Amino acid sequence: MEFELIATDAETGARAGLLHTDHGTIETPIFMPVGTVGSVKAVMQEQLKETVKGQIILGNTYHLYLRPGTEILEKAGGLHKFNGWDRPILTDSGGYQVFSLSGNRKLKEEGALFQSHIDGSRHLFTPESVMDIQRSIGADIVMAFDECTPYPCEYGYARKSMELTHRWLTRCVKRFGETEPKYGHNQSLFPIVQGSTYKDLRRESAEFISQIEADGNAIGGLSVGEPEQDMYEMCELVCGILPKQKPRYLMGVGTPWNILEGIGLGVDMFDCVMPTRNGRNGMLFTSEGVVNIKNKRWADDFSPIDAGLEDGPSTVYTKAYLRHLFAANEILGLQLASLQNLSFYLHLVKEARKHIIAGDFASWRRGMLETVKRRN
Amino acid sequence: MEFELIATDAETGARAGLLHTDHGTIETPIFMPVGTVGSVKAVMQEQLKETVKGQIILGNTYHLYLRPGTEILEKAGGLHKFNGWDRPILTDSGGYQVFSLSGNRKLKEEGALFQSHIDGSRHLFTPESVMDIQRSIGADIVMAFDECTPYPCEYGYARKSMELTHRWLTRCVKRFGETEPKYGHNQSLFPIVQGSTYKDLRRESAEFISQIEADGNAIGGLSVGEPEQDMYEMCELVCGILPKQKPRYLMGVGTPWNILEGIGLGVDMFDCVMPTRNGRNGMLFTSEGVVNIKNKRWADDFSPIDAGLEDGPSTVYTKAYLRHLFAANEILGLQLASLQNLSFYLHLVKEARKHIIAGDFASWRRGMLETVKRRN
Repeated sequence: MEFELIATDAETGARAGLLHTDHGTIETPIFMPVGTVGSVKAVMQEQLKETVKGQIILGNTYHLYLRPGTEILEKAGGLHKFNGWDRPILTDSGGYQVFSLSGNRKLKEEGALFQSHIDGSRHLFTPESVMDIQRSIGADIVMAFDECTPYPCEYGYARKSMELTHRWLTRCVKRFGETEPKYGHNQSLFPIVQGSTYKDLRRESAEFISQIEADGNAIGGLSVGEPEQDMYEMCELVCGILPKQKPRYLMGVGTPWNILEGIGLGVDMFDCVMPTRNGRNGMLFTSEGVVNIKNKRWADDFSPIDAGLEDGPSTVYTKAYLRHLFAANEILGLQLASLQNLSFYLHLVKEARKHIIAGDFASWRRGMLETVKRRN
Repeated sequence: MEFELIATDAETGARAGLLHTDHGTIETPIFMPVGTVGSVKAVMQEQLKETVKGQIILGNTYHLYLRPGTEILEKAGGLHKFNGWDRPILTDSGGYQVFSLSGNRKLKEEGALFQSHIDGSRHLFTPESVMDIQRSIGADIVMAFDECTPYPCEYGYARKSMELTHRWLTRCVKRFGETEPKYGHNQSLFPIVQGSTYKDLRRESAEFISQIEADGNAIGGLSVGEPEQDMYEMCELVCGILPKQKPRYLMGVGTPWNILEGIGLGVDMFDCVMPTRNGRNGMLFTSEGVVNIKNKRWADDFSPIDAGLEDGPSTVYTKAYLRHLFAANEILGLQLASLQNLSFYLHLVKEARKHIIAGDFASWRRGMLETVKRRN
């Protein structure tokens, strides 16, 4: 994997780049739709390419390990073959889900013992097993196994947790180096900076992670309930330490305005369930701002869902029709809202990239921040 | 509306035709996907055209009247404008839903009093109001208001009901003749033959309906629980009486084999929720027969969902992946299964048409009946 920096913004930390993988080149900054169990909810792979213009999707190791399981994934020839998505894939390490989804989890030096949220069965994730699972899944980018601290988090716990994450990282790097990709394409391991909202911990973690000299680096443990200002502050601090020549990935973030801020701080990659999850609840992100499509005011609004997008269903179907689909509990409503939100997210990062290259990112962003936050 | 007979089969009653409407020409025999409230469940309009190759869809007057309501539909410029489907649409009369869905319904000479299944509100459908509602919806083909008798049904009740349906038809024809289309395209009214499973009633009804000289004629009250043999018998009897030069529509039918039999008896049009509803429950209709995709045996079957179809997702996604989507309760599973089943239904009637024209329908059907009934 190779990362080319194409342009850096003079006023902010924003960068435009090209991330070359064996499944194609990703233009950064980029947003990665979340395909939890190998499917971006309510969106077909063809639509992800043609309508959303998605370049890379994310899979969750925790979910894929439980269903369909590594045996099936290996038989299929990896996740790309299994789900028919032939562009790049990134898998998280399962750490976040172990702590947020599973019952009765127990953290040890060795790893994390947990119970499946599906059937209660017991499993152990270790840095080594998680590397092996991600070899079986076959994503282009795999993440180190970490503990994602909750917010708020006491200083003592945050330090202990960070140190454990670092020790786990050393084991991840070792195991990853001792194993080979299974499907003929290369895989890159990204380590994750932790440290909650403590500056000294974040600094220490970013320095530790930097010396790994990985193909890319991630910032975890943010967007877990802390004030937005804290998130930006940590992000800025960490981006100042992580190597410039490698892509930076801010995990699980966020709203359109979070992404615009993150890009300005030097982040290259984002992922979040928000566009699909909120979409399924009727919350749209559009070129005109945030729209609650369930609201009665749209019942006879025959304007396009989002006239600001270039093509795709959002420019054809009306707000009134989508509102009707939500009122009548039609699955098509979930499909259209998910398509709209993902299309808008990908449109937003593409525009940001264009303006970084053109050299007017800061002024473009000022106007855009106002637009995307507008409540309609 | 004009119906052109292109070919009639020498051995069976099968016919191939062209049904010209203001929204385009329909090749018959045809299957019409059901778009209850203006959306074919889990399928986008673009996919209905490009993947399914749907030529006409059905809307339900009962559902559209309750949601979004005629006021919104009129403001939108009719259902075609509202849902973005610019090909032909047929709407049923609401009679069937009044009797199957709503609570506390009461039949009178004037019409049917019923309570909404959504909010319990009280409404009255009369032959006149149902014609007016269908003018507001703006379908290319609208159906007469009828009572659909249940099965089994006593002779006395079936006769009384049929006579009421006939009197209602006279009122429908009158009202329809006194009103104009609202959106610049023509609408045709199809009357409905009733009479339960009684030959003399079916004969009487078919003769009554024939003298209306409508643009097309429908056979209702079948596929409501009677043995398949009874359905075929009634269908054959009625097709022998209904005018040859007009399209015949068998309402609410059915399985792939029901459709192949119906075509052989001289039916030109079919509709049914089965491909989408059963699809959502994991029952697939394919070129290889019936597939319960939830079955564990498909977990590592990496063959296409249906290799027998020409293109579309069914030829790309595997059975193993679709099985996984159902196991994980992913919306994409509902989308793919619905697409598969509708694509197969449309493929089936297209093949039937080809063989009617080629003159080998009867022999082709013998093999096909065996194939489509096969349980995998």
